[in-house]
Amino acid sequence: MSTDDLAAPAALAPHLGTVLDALAAGAATRNGPLPAGGPAAVAEALGRVLADTGGADPLRTLTTALAAHSVDPLHPDCAAHLHCPPLAVAVAADLAASAVNASLDSWDQAPAAIEIENDVLRSLAGLVGYGPRAAGVLTTGGTESNLMGLLLARDSAPDHHRATRTAVFASTAAHFSVARNASLLGLPPAAVHLVPTDDRHRMDPAALHAALRAHRARTPAGEGAGPSVVVATAGTTDLGAVDPLRALAETAHAHGASLHVDAAYGGGALFSERLRPLLDGLPLADTIALDLHKLGWQPVPAGVFLARDAARFDPLEARVAYLNAQDDEDEGYLSPLGRSLRTTRRADAFKLAVTLRALGRDGLGRLVDRCHDLARHAAARIAATPGLELTAEPVLTTVVFRCTDPRLDASATDEANARARRALLAAGRAVVGRTELGPGPGAIRLKLTLLNPHTTEERLDALVDAVAAAGREAAAEVVPATAGTA
Amino acid sequence: MSTDDLAAPAALAPHLGTVLDALAAGAATRNGPLPAGGPAAVAEALGRVLADTGGADPLRTLTTALAAHSVDPLHPDCAAHLHCPPLAVAVAADLAASAVNASLDSWDQAPAAIEIENDVLRSLAGLVGYGPRAAGVLTTGGTESNLMGLLLARDSAPDHHRATRTAVFASTAAHFSVARNASLLGLPPAAVHLVPTDDRHRMDPAALHAALRAHRARTPAGEGAGPSVVVATAGTTDLGAVDPLRALAETAHAHGASLHVDAAYGGGALFSERLRPLLDGLPLADTIALDLHKLGWQPVPAGVFLARDAARFDPLEARVAYLNAQDDEDEGYLSPLGRSLRTTRRADAFKLAVTLRALGRDGLGRLVDRCHDLARHAAARIAATPGLELTAEPVLTTVVFRCTDPRLDASATDEANARARRALLAAGRAVVGRTELGPGPGAIRLKLTLLNPHTTEERLDALVDAVAAAGREAAAEVVPATAGTA
Repeated sequence: MSTDDLAAPAALAPHLGTVLDALAAGAATRNGPLPAGGPAAVAEALGRVLADTGGADPLRTLTTALAAHSVDPLHPDCAAHLHCPPLAVAVAADLAASAVNASLDSWDQAPAAIEIENDVLRSLAGLVGYGPRAAGVLTTGGTESNLMGLLLARDSAPDHHRATRTAVFASTAAHFSVARNASLLGLPPAAVHLVPTDDRHRMDPAALHAALRAHRARTPAGEGAGPSVVVATAGTTDLGAVDPLRALAETAHAHGASLHVDAAYGGGALFSERLRPLLDGLPLADTIALDLHKLGWQPVPAGVFLARDAARFDPLEARVAYLNAQDDEDEGYLSPLGRSLRTTRRADAFKLAVTLRALGRDGLGRLVDRCHDLARHAAARIAATPGLELTAEPVLTTVVFRCTDPRLDASATDEANARARRALLAAGRAVVGRTELGPGPGAIRLKLTLLNPHTTEERLDALVDAVAAAGREAAAEVVPATAGTA
Repeated sequence: MSTDDLAAPAALAPHLGTVLDALAAGAATRNGPLPAGGPAAVAEALGRVLADTGGADPLRTLTTALAAHSVDPLHPDCAAHLHCPPLAVAVAADLAASAVNASLDSWDQAPAAIEIENDVLRSLAGLVGYGPRAAGVLTTGGTESNLMGLLLARDSAPDHHRATRTAVFASTAAHFSVARNASLLGLPPAAVHLVPTDDRHRMDPAALHAALRAHRARTPAGEGAGPSVVVATAGTTDLGAVDPLRALAETAHAHGASLHVDAAYGGGALFSERLRPLLDGLPLADTIALDLHKLGWQPVPAGVFLARDAARFDPLEARVAYLNAQDDEDEGYLSPLGRSLRTTRRADAFKLAVTLRALGRDGLGRLVDRCHDLARHAAARIAATPGLELTAEPVLTTVVFRCTDPRLDASATDEANARARRALLAAGRAVVGRTELGPGPGAIRLKLTLLNPHTTEERLDALVDAVAAAGREAAAEVVPATAGTA
């Protein structure tokens, strides 16, 4: 094979064989979900491979190194982030998208991919409960979908001056990208109003009502008023908390605000008969973010942005002579250029179209339920394990907890948990998550995010035991330090 | 195989075989670079396939349909857009990235992918002529890279008020995403200043000087002044025009403005000894956009954003408890979270790392030169073909021209060219581009974008002849209509 072969099927075949061999060979060098030795060891090993720029088969060499030195989401002891093991059928479909290399910015680069994306969006709009006026677009993920939600809210203003006065209301537990996106959109820091949560980390509708009322009182109506948008969260990253969507929608709309729902994580509950009731009220949202690369088992990216009414996209419409001339569109050569912030855009919907047919909603629902079961199992095990403290019962598929030791104060407990997690990483033993609940000493928690439906209760028990052991070792390291500084 | 198999190599193998078979079977149903029949035929055929949600092997069925009804960038008669046929080795590497499913927002989701991205960025920073202080990030493409250029210019302001006063200077030939991105960033329409071009569609440094001076005269210096950023284009989408980067950099910097270079297309000239001199002055840019999914033969996306000084990224730095806690970073667990607008982000650098080693800069340079040769050949053929009018000599790999007929006025000539292009599409015969040079009647042009280095001069001659024939037929259709309405 020649190095400059193009991606025709016959030319691809030998390269794909190389990749499969190398992925297996690389993974076989690990004893756990990641290589042992921590960042320095990974950097040194990769550095050696990358420095050899004259090798005969860089695809094999680099793929082996990638697999050997990655954190493997297929490994049962990889349970830190919303970082799923992808389905084989979805990865294969993604290969087809790469080989065909369609770009959805014009019809004449993507006739089939555009039809397929529209079909997937219709399915997902139906899944969330939207009617026939809905529209959407594939995105790189929740962050971009949330950006689009804020952007289209901002640009629903009748003029630039009022758009600059957009007010955003999100709970203190909302994703960090809400504030980051508001800044990207040019809104001042004071544009983001943090709404208090209840004791289960859900936005409090009464608090939202108060915040919206206070904002209106500060802002004279009429020419100067900007749009208000409420960002609700269906599935916070840490605790999986789902805001009360119906009540928030009613509150927002009563105040003339629109509602964007960040369902990047919790949207997966739509596939599950058991969890779906958590999302009651979702169809009342003006716009929604979903991420099928979380509870959807897609390779990244499989973000989705949906609007209840296609007219929401009007401010994004673009007419570009080289992409979508009016007379070509009149003849049916339509493109979704006016749906996306990007121009060139690959056919990420293709893997979703295949997955939705291969597994069906029910098949995906079974995977969601299995991960929910695993989370409940892990929570029970944690609650029953001395030296571990469960923070809250799981809502979706995350379990938040920490290691405790009666000899440690709040700061030392934080230090012990952070150390325990790093020790598991450095040993190549396990990848568990870490977060902070609120400010100040004692806030650090560990987290299991269960996205591998094929793991077993026995593996999970062993993982919990390993974390507890690491916690005990870390506590023993921290105790003398605390004593010394007390 | 089970539908919910995860993407381990053994589970992937049969699915990949299905994909290769189906890609070949689908392509074999076409007689040209796209299916005949236009949008209605594609919609009908896809609609039939998509309506059958109970099929036994959706991966095979949908992949066959995708290949059958796509515009095939590997076909020599697909020559419309900066929509390249990807290298087999790059598509295979992309499969590895999908299977491993690393996400670059935290170390513990991507230890190897982060090292590999850093290595690729160092290589590309060296390629553009940047020194060791450079930094960068992979993006979804030129539009996102150009957004980052404007964002980091805006947020170099010391406060929000001054950031809202950012002024953008771009030529009338700059990509449409410059104005779109400025709007996304919350800048008013008047923030974008269009700078006139010379007779070869390049930004005129004297005109830029005048525009910057006029802006300063309107804007008192001191507390109220916002940052100014000049967006130069290295390779316009249509004519491949490359702005005089050195002169523009000197002009911009003399006025205290920064320089962002949109080299999404022309950056490929860096691989070519012959074309590289066009980019003289590129290392003087503060930030640069490259797209290796154009003259780099990568599957989408392979966008790159580079900054001459890593400090340019400071406004984007983010500290997020669940992703990059300070004490973890102190222990070496570093991530590029603060480089990207996204959170979850796949390892798009991996295919670049493999490609840069498999082909080398020289290998990519040979492909660039070959496409440049093909463009010059096509231009000569067009100039020698009656009924075709060459608009300009090619600079990079595009050839802009139109069909002419002495019986047609400017508007009718536009109509005939638009019809000729659609006729070639509807027949499934060829995919050629279309654009407009300036406003008003007579602006429409056709375009060949030559990105397939494996096509031949003979195939290209036949393509030019087919366009000329389509132009004659369209002219014959338009003539009576013109006569009737005159």
